[in-house]
Amino acid sequence: MHHAPSSESFTLTPIGYVVSDYADKFGVPRQPGLAPAANAELILSPPYDDPLVVRGLDAFSHVWISFVFHQSPERWSPLVRPPRLGGNRKVGVFASRSTHRPNRLGLSLVELGGIDTHQGVRLKLSGCDLVNGTPVVDIKPYLPWAESPPNAQAGFAPAPPEQLTVQFSATALDQLAQRADRDSLSALIEQVIGQDPRPAYRHGQASERVYGVRLRDVDVKFCPRQNGEATTLEVVAIDISG
Amino acid sequence: MHHAPSSESFTLTPIGYVVSDYADKFGVPRQPGLAPAANAELILSPPYDDPLVVRGLDAFSHVWISFVFHQSPERWSPLVRPPRLGGNRKVGVFASRSTHRPNRLGLSLVELGGIDTHQGVRLKLSGCDLVNGTPVVDIKPYLPWAESPPNAQAGFAPAPPEQLTVQFSATALDQLAQRADRDSLSALIEQVIGQDPRPAYRHGQASERVYGVRLRDVDVKFCPRQNGEATTLEVVAIDISG
Repeated sequence: MHHAPSSESFTLTPIGYVVSDYADKFGVPRQPGLAPAANAELILSPPYDDPLVVRGLDAFSHVWISFVFHQSPERWSPLVRPPRLGGNRKVGVFASRSTHRPNRLGLSLVELGGIDTHQGVRLKLSGCDLVNGTPVVDIKPYLPWAESPPNAQAGFAPAPPEQLTVQFSATALDQLAQRADRDSLSALIEQVIGQDPRPAYRHGQASERVYGVRLRDVDVKFCPRQNGEATTLEVVAIDISG
Repeated sequence: MHHAPSSESFTLTPIGYVVSDYADKFGVPRQPGLAPAANAELILSPPYDDPLVVRGLDAFSHVWISFVFHQSPERWSPLVRPPRLGGNRKVGVFASRSTHRPNRLGLSLVELGGIDTHQGVRLKLSGCDLVNGTPVVDIKPYLPWAESPPNAQAGFAPAPPEQLTVQFSATALDQLAQRADRDSLSALIEQVIGQDPRPAYRHGQASERVYGVRLRDVDVKFCPRQNGEATTLEVVAIDISG
């Protein structure tokens, strides 16, 4: 009954690409849904840009996006250091969602905000955690009755990461005030910076160092501050990126 | 911000293969979890058969398996007829989980029954819906807090399919009684046949025709019966498959 499997390989052709608020990997939340203010569109490529391919999909609220971590090295490693373990304990690559995995396949559950089929096919995605330019290889509807097992146990990642308090400097508030997208941009910044995008071993540490995250067309500069027992994160400036 | 994407393609190398009770596509439940009595193992292939790759995975109760529908034709179609719509209404391929999709990628959430690392790496999977020999390209831990959105809407497939009543003929009961695996095999047969594996447009119809499903090393022959208003399915024989 157990046939020796062939060592066949398979070719993946992207069906489309993501256009998103995330210019770089750095700062992207570790899971989808953690920054609902992040806007993204999935634009289908020919020959998949046919409105027929998504007929009926608008009746589903959520979709699975399978994609390729195109910015990650092709080299994989058996062990990785997940940020949820503080970045200093190693687990197997298949016990993680690390990008350093064989086949570089990613999987994201995102809310489907709408479908535009006027020119080709564009899916509006809410809470998407994909970097701009990410190649997408599949879309599947989410089936709650098949995919929400009650009493599932989630190992070392049993709950969402804590959201840190984010404050804006006077400079940052001035810079925000000049933007037409000030409301959505400030929500996005708060959600993304609040995840503390620094390497996990820095979490909980204050520092003088200023970090930068690129969102939309801006560089968001932030700095960790010690506030009694707690770390807060201050957005010190929001600069148009060069 | 929107770079014209390259038309790059990517190569998938299987990380392992499934050994399962399902010898053929015909009869396999439409989603995982519908036949919990189905046994399966995922056997990792070199160089992925290193116990390190699954370190920590045993703390998760469920895993996502990404695989290739290797028995499906490479040709995809924009529209498909999902069985949940009776097989006579068409929806877009990305609004379905049809196998006739670009890249032939499948995705299954299965319960992790255990991990054996004595010789290579074997994952015991419960409720798995994968055909024997399926090439697997990724394993990811299931994160309930990220992947069970409350109030998700499931379009034309809002609930699990109905389970039909399954009865065994005297012949089938005799054949079962001779098997060492009689208990698990009868549970498996009941769960699989109860999904009514016939083409969707036949559902609800009685017929004289005998259908066959291959499970483990047997051919399960069944026949739809009319029982007042309801259709029931009778297992008429359980033959060792040739």
